[in-house]
Amino acid sequence: MSYNNKLDLYKMNLPADLKKLSYPQCDELCKQIRRLLITTVSKNGGHLASSLGTVELTMAVHRVFESPKDKIVWDVGHQAYSHKILTGRAKKFCTLRQEDGLSGFCRPDESIHDAFISGHSSNSISAALGIATAMKLNGDDHHTIAIVGDGASSGGLFYEGLNNAGKSNTNIIVILNYNEMSISKNVGGMAKYLSTLRTKDGYHKTKSAVKKVLDKTPVIGSPVKKVIKGSKDAVKNSLLHSTLFEDLGFEYIGPLDGHNIAEMERGLQAAKSMNCPVLVHVNTVKGKGYAPAEQNPGEYHGVGSFELSTGNPDVVASDSYSSVMGKELCDIARTNKRVCAITAAMKYGTGLQYFAKQFPERFFDVGIAEEHAVTFCGGLAQMNYIPVFAVYSTFLQRAYDELIHDLAICRYHAVICVDRAGVVGNDGETHQGIFDVPFLSSIPNTKIYSPSDYSELKLCLHQAIYDDDCISAIRYPRGNEKNIIKNENPNTSFTHLKKGGNILIVSYGRLSNNAASAVEILKSKDIICDVLRLVEIFPISEKIADIISGYDVAFFFEECYDYGSISEKYAAVCDNVAPFTIDYFVKHGDCSVLLDELGFSAEKMAEQIEGFLNDEPT
Amino acid sequence: MSYNNKLDLYKMNLPADLKKLSYPQCDELCKQIRRLLITTVSKNGGHLASSLGTVELTMAVHRVFESPKDKIVWDVGHQAYSHKILTGRAKKFCTLRQEDGLSGFCRPDESIHDAFISGHSSNSISAALGIATAMKLNGDDHHTIAIVGDGASSGGLFYEGLNNAGKSNTNIIVILNYNEMSISKNVGGMAKYLSTLRTKDGYHKTKSAVKKVLDKTPVIGSPVKKVIKGSKDAVKNSLLHSTLFEDLGFEYIGPLDGHNIAEMERGLQAAKSMNCPVLVHVNTVKGKGYAPAEQNPGEYHGVGSFELSTGNPDVVASDSYSSVMGKELCDIARTNKRVCAITAAMKYGTGLQYFAKQFPERFFDVGIAEEHAVTFCGGLAQMNYIPVFAVYSTFLQRAYDELIHDLAICRYHAVICVDRAGVVGNDGETHQGIFDVPFLSSIPNTKIYSPSDYSELKLCLHQAIYDDDCISAIRYPRGNEKNIIKNENPNTSFTHLKKGGNILIVSYGRLSNNAASAVEILKSKDIICDVLRLVEIFPISEKIADIISGYDVAFFFEECYDYGSISEKYAAVCDNVAPFTIDYFVKHGDCSVLLDELGFSAEKMAEQIEGFLNDEPT
Repeated sequence: MSYNNKLDLYKMNLPADLKKLSYPQCDELCKQIRRLLITTVSKNGGHLASSLGTVELTMAVHRVFESPKDKIVWDVGHQAYSHKILTGRAKKFCTLRQEDGLSGFCRPDESIHDAFISGHSSNSISAALGIATAMKLNGDDHHTIAIVGDGASSGGLFYEGLNNAGKSNTNIIVILNYNEMSISKNVGGMAKYLSTLRTKDGYHKTKSAVKKVLDKTPVIGSPVKKVIKGSKDAVKNSLLHSTLFEDLGFEYIGPLDGHNIAEMERGLQAAKSMNCPVLVHVNTVKGKGYAPAEQNPGEYHGVGSFELSTGNPDVVASDSYSSVMGKELCDIARTNKRVCAITAAMKYGTGLQYFAKQFPERFFDVGIAEEHAVTFCGGLAQMNYIPVFAVYSTFLQRAYDELIHDLAICRYHAVICVDRAGVVGNDGETHQGIFDVPFLSSIPNTKIYSPSDYSELKLCLHQAIYDDDCISAIRYPRGNEKNIIKNENPNTSFTHLKKGGNILIVSYGRLSNNAASAVEILKSKDIICDVLRLVEIFPISEKIADIISGYDVAFFFEECYDYGSISEKYAAVCDNVAPFTIDYFVKHGDCSVLLDELGFSAEKMAEQIEGFLNDEPT
Repeated sequence: MSYNNKLDLYKMNLPADLKKLSYPQCDELCKQIRRLLITTVSKNGGHLASSLGTVELTMAVHRVFESPKDKIVWDVGHQAYSHKILTGRAKKFCTLRQEDGLSGFCRPDESIHDAFISGHSSNSISAALGIATAMKLNGDDHHTIAIVGDGASSGGLFYEGLNNAGKSNTNIIVILNYNEMSISKNVGGMAKYLSTLRTKDGYHKTKSAVKKVLDKTPVIGSPVKKVIKGSKDAVKNSLLHSTLFEDLGFEYIGPLDGHNIAEMERGLQAAKSMNCPVLVHVNTVKGKGYAPAEQNPGEYHGVGSFELSTGNPDVVASDSYSSVMGKELCDIARTNKRVCAITAAMKYGTGLQYFAKQFPERFFDVGIAEEHAVTFCGGLAQMNYIPVFAVYSTFLQRAYDELIHDLAICRYHAVICVDRAGVVGNDGETHQGIFDVPFLSSIPNTKIYSPSDYSELKLCLHQAIYDDDCISAIRYPRGNEKNIIKNENPNTSFTHLKKGGNILIVSYGRLSNNAASAVEILKSKDIICDVLRLVEIFPISEKIADIISGYDVAFFFEECYDYGSISEKYAAVCDNVAPFTIDYFVKHGDCSVLLDELGFSAEKMAEQIEGFLNDEPT
């Protein structure tokens, strides 16, 4: 194809055609991509700022490397929207994060250009090393490229990957995309270090890398020299502080201007020619090209959706389980000086911004480092402080061992606010909070609460802080209270509503409300159900088992993976439990649609109960 | 007390009296400690080489700091035996790792001088930071000291801790004990880096640290100057490569001679005076003072027990589940070129030394980095290799999230050899393998096998590699096959032995053998039991549920934590299951004694069944 005419993103053969473009054409295409990004994310929600920052970087990577022969592994995938657009998914991009549409993250089953799954932070180097190792065993000398944002650099898995990749003899290239503004404000020594590197423009460019490239590849000697123009002379270079990445075994190239395609291409060409582990450091501006996002990238990290003209996110943060928790915790901390709050890079997401502002000395943002967060809680608890770690259900999975080893064995008192528990919607299967009940209930000295509205969330928080002496996990969903039927009896244990039926519906958390509506639907069909709404869902209680056993059948609905669920535990002690749980990885889509598909809407609950009763020989 | 007379370890007031000793007296005490270490570990087993290496270091720490006002957090605790001896536990030291005796690790409930629990690697910096933060909030300016071996430096949690501690304004001191020989041969960029630092004697000693100390603390200026004697001049210093630890926000002191008490004291005094995060790098010789251990520290890392004169470990490695697995895997890998083997620093412990020798290009020791190991497996699997990750049950806990995110979601085919599953004995509650069934069974696309002898282990390995297409976990215990009653029908699914009873005993793994013996005991009392021996224990099978349901009662014995157990899952679908599981953290002790206490010996099984039948109104 020829590009004399105006470029058309939708008609190009991508990514192959990218290599044919002139730099002005690249710039034109970048503009088109940004327009598509902004339009789509403003409608569908998603991670705008990260993706706006990586448009040129993605272009440079695809011009220098040949996907899928070269393998590109994106970390997290927030930054990978341009990659999707540039690898044959431009037309489908309007379906981003919609049911049956494109995933918000990378998925090998979505495209041959997605070399590995992304979602949870910091996994890309380890995955890329596995791929690079396999290629080496195959005798294939193509490259594997892991693209990591600086936000992921606080994660232990990032370091473990780096530590192993550095000493490998593989063609692995790690592109560290430094944008100064990961999910919350970046924390930790590494973030500070990267920011120092960032500012030392030119100074750290390719020390030993330079020598190697110039020695080995005279052909590209000239462009490479431009990459290293900042290095004054050889003597100075030899005395310069090596980077931490060189200490770990990588060749280091950078920092490069992440919005200058030509400069990045030269750097990546140099990296490609080295055939050894190389770290390429790229500086980008988060939100690049969209004024509201560029000015305040924090707010645009992960928005539901937002208004295009003003850039205002339409999620009213104050009406959510997260902020109710955050504000209540402030009330408690005002009088209880022992309460500390911990987040792993999710200050805003978990509603801890209020606490951070009012009690900065007792607030700790540890960066993306859930393992550290939990063990750090253990240290605080050992000294009689009461740590409250607010964390998304799906990310708490990272700290399973630390919960057992550093909290449970010594029976420390710690509160875990398990946010985004249950189905989360558009983020999809990597982010659904459906495993916390199974893994938390497998840990001795642990209690689990599942409040069904704001008032119960507050009660549970008080009880966890003042009355408990173990690991107390309080799980609540993403978003806001949506109760249609008012909860007349907020409490921290359970509510048993008797309507004279010999059928029981058991549930907890937000599904309790659907259960209450299902009762009304069934009543209209002359099926009378009692309701058992659990709040302290674990440990299993004899009292509750006795209630359940008093019925002909107990229908148990829970937003939880099947094995390890609470209904399974009651089914083990009662012989009349009909469990309705989740038995597969739930894909992305609108949350209420997903809940309906899973059989958890009031209508579906009623339908299933009716169906069960009709099938059952009574 | 006066020390004119001969020192007596058992009569001293420790650790307080240490500060009164002259250097020659210190040396004398070190000799006594080493004798006690060697004698005790030769009888009781334990980690000799690590502990021999830290005798002087421990002495120096306790002379400079004041425990328990200053808090000492040992990583892992293999190195902490001298610490136990020097903190009032000399007399009880002969009970090390025995039931009701001293734990092999640090435990706050064992001594006020153990500031945090140790067991799993790399947690000390995070825990120490929690403690140091609490002290800061208390306005207490004592120090918290984390002592970490280089083996732990490959763990992600080490980095997360370091990354957060470096930017904290706390009095945290991290002592990095470099002994060149962690559990297996050390791997990774960090290990290589540390070894470089080690050899640059004097060069890296206290760059900015020097300045700070000299400026702030003129009183101790003179001894500090000795610490930095290697630094030639200020100009040179300013041009020198900073350490990675300084990059992460620490002041750096080292490397110090870990067998020179005076030198370490000067370094630790300097660290103490700085009141900021300091990393002190100490070089020690593993196995110091005991010739066989010094010559071959690898063999003495964790020995059952060994003969004092020759130093030969009495554990015949070739007769163990681990080595049977390792050898069988070699047989398979000889013809199947897609098989790769991965260990996280446990090459010898998991029996992978044979594979490493025969197929070095397909063998990967990733260091203590279980998370990376699993995600790395994902990368290999994505490229159609078959990764076999051999790992202790208790350490696999670290990779729960990666199993879900980087293996299960994409339904990769990977084999996890879960070694040390069930009760492990003397290592105690931090190391018992009783959670793998609960957490593995909560992961979709996962199968779990539990062979009951060597022949079944081999069969399961073949099936997992050749027939399965998911995560296949094969769990087996520490040590060797101890079957009293021969397994007549080795297979990979289950064996149902009918003897005409209406009572069933269900079990799997090594307990199957005890169950078989229990049947004989019960038979002698005219109680006839059938036996169901499971091999593929998960997913739950309808066929097995049907068998179970055909009996009056099914007694189910399993070495597994109660919640999330297999018996719980069958109890949820059958109403006649009487489960016998584990419902507490199991302390250290002899394995067969512990199994008996848990009710899992043949005698106890029979007793419990008899008791149940007598209680039951039939």
